[in-house]
Amino acid sequence: MKEHVGVIGAGSWATALAALLAKKGRRVIMYARRPELAEEINITRENSRYLPGVAIHPNIEVTVDLERAFRKARVVVFGVPSHAFREVVRQSRPFLKNDTIYVNTAKGIEETSLSSMSAVFAQEAGTELLQKYAGLSGPSHAEEVGRELPTAVVAASYRLETAEYVQELFMSDRFRVYTNPDVLGVELGGALKNIIALGTGIAEGLSFGDNTKAALMTRGLAEITRLGVIMGANPLTFAGLAGVGDLIVTCTSMHSRNRRAGIAIGKGSSVEEALELVDMVVEGVRTTRAAHQLSARYAVEMPITDQIYKVLFEGLAPGTAVNNLMSRGRTREMEEVAKMTVKLLNNN
Amino acid sequence: MKEHVGVIGAGSWATALAALLAKKGRRVIMYARRPELAEEINITRENSRYLPGVAIHPNIEVTVDLERAFRKARVVVFGVPSHAFREVVRQSRPFLKNDTIYVNTAKGIEETSLSSMSAVFAQEAGTELLQKYAGLSGPSHAEEVGRELPTAVVAASYRLETAEYVQELFMSDRFRVYTNPDVLGVELGGALKNIIALGTGIAEGLSFGDNTKAALMTRGLAEITRLGVIMGANPLTFAGLAGVGDLIVTCTSMHSRNRRAGIAIGKGSSVEEALELVDMVVEGVRTTRAAHQLSARYAVEMPITDQIYKVLFEGLAPGTAVNNLMSRGRTREMEEVAKMTVKLLNNN
Repeated sequence: MKEHVGVIGAGSWATALAALLAKKGRRVIMYARRPELAEEINITRENSRYLPGVAIHPNIEVTVDLERAFRKARVVVFGVPSHAFREVVRQSRPFLKNDTIYVNTAKGIEETSLSSMSAVFAQEAGTELLQKYAGLSGPSHAEEVGRELPTAVVAASYRLETAEYVQELFMSDRFRVYTNPDVLGVELGGALKNIIALGTGIAEGLSFGDNTKAALMTRGLAEITRLGVIMGANPLTFAGLAGVGDLIVTCTSMHSRNRRAGIAIGKGSSVEEALELVDMVVEGVRTTRAAHQLSARYAVEMPITDQIYKVLFEGLAPGTAVNNLMSRGRTREMEEVAKMTVKLLNNN
Repeated sequence: MKEHVGVIGAGSWATALAALLAKKGRRVIMYARRPELAEEINITRENSRYLPGVAIHPNIEVTVDLERAFRKARVVVFGVPSHAFREVVRQSRPFLKNDTIYVNTAKGIEETSLSSMSAVFAQEAGTELLQKYAGLSGPSHAEEVGRELPTAVVAASYRLETAEYVQELFMSDRFRVYTNPDVLGVELGGALKNIIALGTGIAEGLSFGDNTKAALMTRGLAEITRLGVIMGANPLTFAGLAGVGDLIVTCTSMHSRNRRAGIAIGKGSSVEEALELVDMVVEGVRTTRAAHQLSARYAVEMPITDQIYKVLFEGLAPGTAVNNLMSRGRTREMEEVAKMTVKLLNNN
């Protein structure tokens, strides 16, 4: 009998991962909330709304029965947006088992609680299941994984055995999985990069060049790392696939909704218009609000996040925001680096 | 009297920096080797070959008399390609003074000696002048600086006073300069990133996607950092403007000659054809050869550099190279990170 995998959600990323697993010989039961979407995929064998052009493998079945996605599964992959994650884990609680592995692909920070996704999982599923939990993150646009273009990601778990199980599960000659024990760092990298993508999108919309964009990405990475280190993450995780790797793809790819929303704002759209235009979830807007609160709570200077926040929620003109970032007092690059090094030394 | 600045070279970057300094009120004496280029710029007030569309400020004068560029200068900026740097410093030796500041913008590793640019300078100018030497590096395409698009760079010197002088010299509301004491790290970042740009260009030429490109950039940054740390650089410099910042701009901008040469190779051009097509110096080809030797000398694993080397000099098919990189054995991302952390702890 084929090994069963449950996939919760039927968006772009859930569908791309389901396709990958089905091709690797797994039997995939994919849960869709909306009956019309489940029916469409089961009948047409395509997810035309979220992953057009990718044939749905015969090993995939879509169900609207949540329990069915868990029933025979040795591993369940949560593929829902971050703001829906708590509710979905809560609904899944009756079906959770100690011998199942749980993979989460949602990237974000819960706005109300400021919890990371692993913390949300622990709160809803029980801390004992954290040993079975892995976050999957890295530079991985669903559209390209669907087209089987070479991709490399990170599976992060507190328990190496869990991370290695997930690595084995997804690894193919077109999809490379690295393990990493720094769950928090991987989660923060995946969530916070969306803020910087909004920012570089805004700079692009304002017709600034590649120099400006690279400077924003580098300084953005530095402030994400600063926050992460204070919160307990390893600074070097931010130099890896879930940090700079995901930042690069989100800031440079036209697949990126955050980038596209930023470009629209830079070109003069209101925030509401930009979100409507992109017509999907723009995680960066929620994440900016959460990061703004975190930077205050941990007293970490995050100038880029601060300016993006003002553009999104306080009506600051985008051009003024970019100028504010470029006209701050002169700085020694290594002052900051030295501070981070000291933190790192203290952590080890 | 206006402060005099000498600029050695009349290529894109030399011209863009001369324009910036002239606009800041400096009197710039720019040295061009070829009389016809000097004459063209002096008469037409445009450097149409290397920086078209940018008016040459009245404060700029071009000369073919090398001594004249040094005569009244408080600071001299070397703006020649890395392979010409030794010869130019040697020719300048009679004009070097102890109270002048020297800025170098060449990014590369000397192929024959494997010396960094600061080492070349020390060998030719005398080690005592190293205190007066600063490297200027970071994500800064000349074309965009010429158009006054916001740009941020690093001035690296062993002596803070020198770095701060250079910071003050160039800083404007569109050109931000950070100081960094890690001269070697800044130099290696600027040189080695060109190899990765060739590599991501090749992947683009082969029609791989943004995921592949981001993975190559991230893993490329990791191997550059590995080599740098073994050679004595600070790993965190590679997370800064001269490291990841410059890597991003070189791998993603269409201004990048290394990227364009890589794309041509990926699309099937021979290396010779690709270099001809791009029609300017492609530093990455020389740097690949140098880095290949350095990785052997220091016994550092550099899989991406290794594959690019084989494509450039041993006739390996580009598609095979990318597949080789994607099919290596599974790895723990943090193994490497942990090793780097230990190195960092030992260095401090």
